[in-house]
Amino acid sequence: MKLNNLGEVHTNIARPDAADVARLAQFGVATIHEAMGRVGLLRPYIRPAYTGAKLCGPAVTVLLQPGDNWMFHVAAEQVQPGDVIVAGCTTESEDGFFGELLATSLTARGCQGLVIDGGVRDVADLEKMDFPVFSRAINSKGTVKATLGSVNIPVVVANALVNPGDVVVADVDGVVVVPRALVGAVADASQEREDREEAKRAQFRAGVLGLDIYGMREPLASAGLEYVED
Amino acid sequence: MKLNNLGEVHTNIARPDAADVARLAQFGVATIHEAMGRVGLLRPYIRPAYTGAKLCGPAVTVLLQPGDNWMFHVAAEQVQPGDVIVAGCTTESEDGFFGELLATSLTARGCQGLVIDGGVRDVADLEKMDFPVFSRAINSKGTVKATLGSVNIPVVVANALVNPGDVVVADVDGVVVVPRALVGAVADASQEREDREEAKRAQFRAGVLGLDIYGMREPLASAGLEYVED
Amino acid sequence: MKLNNLGEVHTNIARPDAADVARLAQFGVATIHEAMGRVGLLRPYIRPAYTGAKLCGPAVTVLLQPGDNWMFHVAAEQVQPGDVIVAGCTTESEDGFFGELLATSLTARGCQGLVIDGGVRDVADLEKMDFPVFSRAINSKGTVKATLGSVNIPVVVANALVNPGDVVVADVDGVVVVPRALVGAVADASQEREDREEAKRAQFRAGVLGLDIYGMREPLASAGLEYVED
Amino acid sequence: MKLNNLGEVHTNIARPDAADVARLAQFGVATIHEAMGRVGLLRPYIRPAYTGAKLCGPAVTVLLQPGDNWMFHVAAEQVQPGDVIVAGCTTESEDGFFGELLATSLTARGCQGLVIDGGVRDVADLEKMDFPVFSRAINSKGTVKATLGSVNIPVVVANALVNPGDVVVADVDGVVVVPRALVGAVADASQEREDREEAKRAQFRAGVLGLDIYGMREPLASAGLEYVED
Amino acid sequence: MKLNNLGEVHTNIARPDAADVARLAQFGVATIHEAMGRVGLLRPYIRPAYTGAKLCGPAVTVLLQPGDNWMFHVAAEQVQPGDVIVAGCTTESEDGFFGELLATSLTARGCQGLVIDGGVRDVADLEKMDFPVFSRAINSKGTVKATLGSVNIPVVVANALVNPGDVVVADVDGVVVVPRALVGAVADASQEREDREEAKRAQFRAGVLGLDIYGMREPLASAGLEYVED
Amino acid sequence: MKLNNLGEVHTNIARPDAADVARLAQFGVATIHEAMGRVGLLRPYIRPAYTGAKLCGPAVTVLLQPGDNWMFHVAAEQVQPGDVIVAGCTTESEDGFFGELLATSLTARGCQGLVIDGGVRDVADLEKMDFPVFSRAINSKGTVKATLGSVNIPVVVANALVNPGDVVVADVDGVVVVPRALVGAVADASQEREDREEAKRAQFRAGVLGLDIYGMREPLASAGLEYVED
Repeated sequence: MKLNNLGEVHTNIARPDAADVARLAQFGVATIHEAMGRVGLLRPYIRPAYTGAKLCGPAVTVLLQPGDNWMFHVAAEQVQPGDVIVAGCTTESEDGFFGELLATSLTARGCQGLVIDGGVRDVADLEKMDFPVFSRAINSKGTVKATLGSVNIPVVVANALVNPGDVVVADVDGVVVVPRALVGAVADASQEREDREEAKRAQFRAGVLGLDIYGMREPLASAGLEYVED
Repeated sequence: MKLNNLGEVHTNIARPDAADVARLAQFGVATIHEAMGRVGLLRPYIRPAYTGAKLCGPAVTVLLQPGDNWMFHVAAEQVQPGDVIVAGCTTESEDGFFGELLATSLTARGCQGLVIDGGVRDVADLEKMDFPVFSRAINSKGTVKATLGSVNIPVVVANALVNPGDVVVADVDGVVVVPRALVGAVADASQEREDREEAKRAQFRAGVLGLDIYGMREPLASAGLEYVED
Repeated sequence: MKLNNLGEVHTNIARPDAADVARLAQFGVATIHEAMGRVGLLRPYIRPAYTGAKLCGPAVTVLLQPGDNWMFHVAAEQVQPGDVIVAGCTTESEDGFFGELLATSLTARGCQGLVIDGGVRDVADLEKMDFPVFSRAINSKGTVKATLGSVNIPVVVANALVNPGDVVVADVDGVVVVPRALVGAVADASQEREDREEAKRAQFRAGVLGLDIYGMREPLASAGLEYVED
Repeated sequence: MKLNNLGEVHTNIARPDAADVARLAQFGVATIHEAMGRVGLLRPYIRPAYTGAKLCGPAVTVLLQPGDNWMFHVAAEQVQPGDVIVAGCTTESEDGFFGELLATSLTARGCQGLVIDGGVRDVADLEKMDFPVFSRAINSKGTVKATLGSVNIPVVVANALVNPGDVVVADVDGVVVVPRALVGAVADASQEREDREEAKRAQFRAGVLGLDIYGMREPLASAGLEYVED
Repeated sequence: MKLNNLGEVHTNIARPDAADVARLAQFGVATIHEAMGRVGLLRPYIRPAYTGAKLCGPAVTVLLQPGDNWMFHVAAEQVQPGDVIVAGCTTESEDGFFGELLATSLTARGCQGLVIDGGVRDVADLEKMDFPVFSRAINSKGTVKATLGSVNIPVVVANALVNPGDVVVADVDGVVVVPRALVGAVADASQEREDREEAKRAQFRAGVLGLDIYGMREPLASAGLEYVED
Repeated sequence: MKLNNLGEVHTNIARPDAADVARLAQFGVATIHEAMGRVGLLRPYIRPAYTGAKLCGPAVTVLLQPGDNWMFHVAAEQVQPGDVIVAGCTTESEDGFFGELLATSLTARGCQGLVIDGGVRDVADLEKMDFPVFSRAINSKGTVKATLGSVNIPVVVANALVNPGDVVVADVDGVVVVPRALVGAVADASQEREDREEAKRAQFRAGVLGLDIYGMREPLASAGLEYVED
């Protein structure tokens, strides 16, 4: 009986509708996260490797071993144009699993970028290539190629579960995972949220207070809020 | 279309065979983790709240909101004798979500202990009651009861996915999750590992080196290891 | 015009009624913190230096410079029997500002213990002497005596404001500050809370759920909680 | 007897002279901190949310609960043109308490920016609006509006005490608090320091060593400094 | 030209005089560190794996790769009775490099314990065997045996340089490295310091203040210390 | 007998050949680290103080005391054109040891930049002057000048040993130390590595996979990699 899914490469993952992904890509991470009801965020220690990095695409998932990037080469073959690689690690590791040569390879495959719960390097080159990377560290430390992990299994990355084919969206505000089956619905909900916010924004610009826009005065008073002139 | 599973309580979860759980409880976390092929560990920042805490049982899972322990009371009703509560949080929070009164309630329900990616308090009482708790912090900070989370949905806790009914084992070495369907097989594999280790232990005690027990001299030489007398 | 209060030693601080302090000392930190309405806690990174450490007493406050424990000697003279020293630092520093010799000196003055947002050493001796210490680190690194700080000014320690004469209570659950003028009232409120909890404890022991004790079922339903049998 | 000041909004705070604030705004945080005698700094984990952010103004203070930004809406009403909001939290929380809609509202009220011991989001928008924000994290995680905190009470933020009406200055070097009554004097002292530094800067540029400018050779020798030619 | 010393095992290291090591073992880490003039400490994140662990002995050094404990088996052969293993890692790694089987092997070789800038496991067993271990983490995560490091080269461990044959002393206060050539002299200096401290201890016990013992009143006044009665 | 090298200034250090340093300066940190066989990196918490900072030069080393920058002035006199200052600290300290005035002084001496395991300030000025600084923190907190450290002794900085005259290279990917005697050889090896990578880069650009370029398919299969179509 197989007790784990290490050493597996799943070659035939389902991807969401490309039009839905394109619609989702118009929204920021904070909006999408709110539209989903405040779920799906990675821990905020994952940060863009350079200013202005942004990505949106279906996930090819990778499970790495600490200090070992062998599985990236296996994953590269599974990438289809528009995909994003999402890599977790079996332990907390800030080694530099990824750099410019791999980015060159992935760009040639049409890959849109990388989210990794580990370190990356060659950051000046990544920025020049505009290959967006979100990572927990920047680190020159190289890695070996000695131990199997997995590709396209469900992976936990920065405390979020990512299934292959889920859409990952990342920008300066963080990284959010949208389950494959919900991409269209979440794009819709994001648009609705943005429309609602636009209406409120006009009021805020005009100087109306949130206290009045959201009708908070009564609930605050009920909760016992007390105004003191002293 | 429902975009998340917040506000859900699943009342009818499957649990593993109690005899398998009992067999698994004989092994330490390090052994079980190795027997499974080195998967299933929570991040090591989860530590026992007091020296000597240990637990093993099927998980009733809880998803908490930061600073809010409302869902613990909902979870208490779902606990069956022998269960362990496993609680994640939508953000990193070290508030004191859990203390002696809840432990008293859970003990009355037959609960075996708690694993929480958050803080706990009343630790001296928990130790006196011998209610084992594994947490990321000890913190007196109290919590409110204002926002829904969920009970018995799949939850990511300290970077590990826990499904309701999975068995969670915790001791001084950490916390490991065993999928419900694998409990018996993992108990078997743990026993086999322990038998194998016992044989090696005897050799180690007699002064035989790992270099010889594991036949490492040749692969080390091939890898280029060099002995220098200087 | 004086722009700061560095280099000041206030020699004539007010202390709370000793009987009130004695009453407060009967309660744990978590209880007191709740009784005050959830304020006054130090950040939870302050931990007991040894298992079982506990203290309660009026604060003689100290503001330290990084790597410099000169002010401890100044503070020792200001200690009266029953006092606790509470030391902040102008920067985050884990140096070993305090050890067994200073503890011997303070014990001779009747000091009840130390809370410090810094490091301490000679921990085995401190435990043997039963001189309770709560600190952010254990560290052998010695300190110099070169730069003035202050004694008995208001000091921020682990993100909490401590005024000289405020009562500081510390146990395994953390450290809480009770303003001098409130010590009696907080002791009363702590007793009330403990009485209320004892009543609930009996119900919990009998297996009644928090859902029913606290009347949570209706508010949970209003908030949208959904029970799913699947 | 009231045991805490949660749920209070103070509506009538004193502010410093605007001309003094304007004078202070000309100096950098490092200069002001030195001019005050090295007090008043927030812990350095508070960082600008975007490159180039800077602010200076009297504080409207906010005490938040973890994961709850209700009090921001209450605070918005208390803001006067030129004010800065300074927000602490009852626990360490990196949730995204603040984003572009609130910034729009505050801008309409004449608010100069935000310092928060918590997380913020919509950072690309904040930068576009040039609404300066200094925070401990960037995080999309949304917050609820369920529990009272306070507005315009003394608040500890990143280990510094801030009273309403104190002036807060922030730039790439960090955040410093200047007590309301000292703003003019600190501006004077900052100017004096800058004048003194300008004189030294000319010497340094000309290649004169600090050893000679500050007359350090003798004290270094007294302290035992030894030059070794080997 | 060899550009690094990876893959080297030095088999013929010098060790200090055993009588000097025995004398040094009588002193605590804080005393030794002070006696050396406040150098030689490892960063304080290295902590005893169990309460009461203590060790003192010449170092057999190991340089590990992240997630890889192959070199421990190579080091075991180099251990002589009384030695301590001191292990650094090429990156920050909290994997469980070491457990009970290796401790059994090392005990058979006469090894006195382990200091490691990494994680360890089987801590309950280590305590039962009384094999003292000082580490940065406790972690069940197993390691592979795939990549060469080194044995008995100079290694930086927790920011301290350790040469093979240097003596490492560890207790609850931390870990200090004494260069091989200085062991006797440091033992002497430690004894002198302890003698001096014993004299002061008697004065402190009698209630004499450090202010007077160390003659601090005059330098404090010169530095500007001001006593305020208010 | 001298038990430490505090208070020493070595005035006559050897430096590498300037032409070798110039050749090395053409390569990035990640390349040099790989070329050396993956040794010599500082821990990755050392980061550039501003975007685009880069440096390469022989080290004048400094050992600082926490909160004390006296030794920087001593070091300034030892700097020769092209040198880099590399500063460690006897404890972990994030104080602002270094700012614009010292940078002005060092620039006048021909210094190329600073690497410091501590904090710095005046970062906007440093960027304007283009004086590259790599540090563990940005912090306005000023320092005193009271306690001796050392200049041009071997120093451990961010867990790496730096000898005076070693070459330190720093860019966005981190900081690497090249031993003085190896500078030419490491420049050669870096060039070779870059040539090899250029060849591979062309293949990657053409869409050839690393699996094929590096001949990984067979070893992956031997290790047990399994392709699953599901």
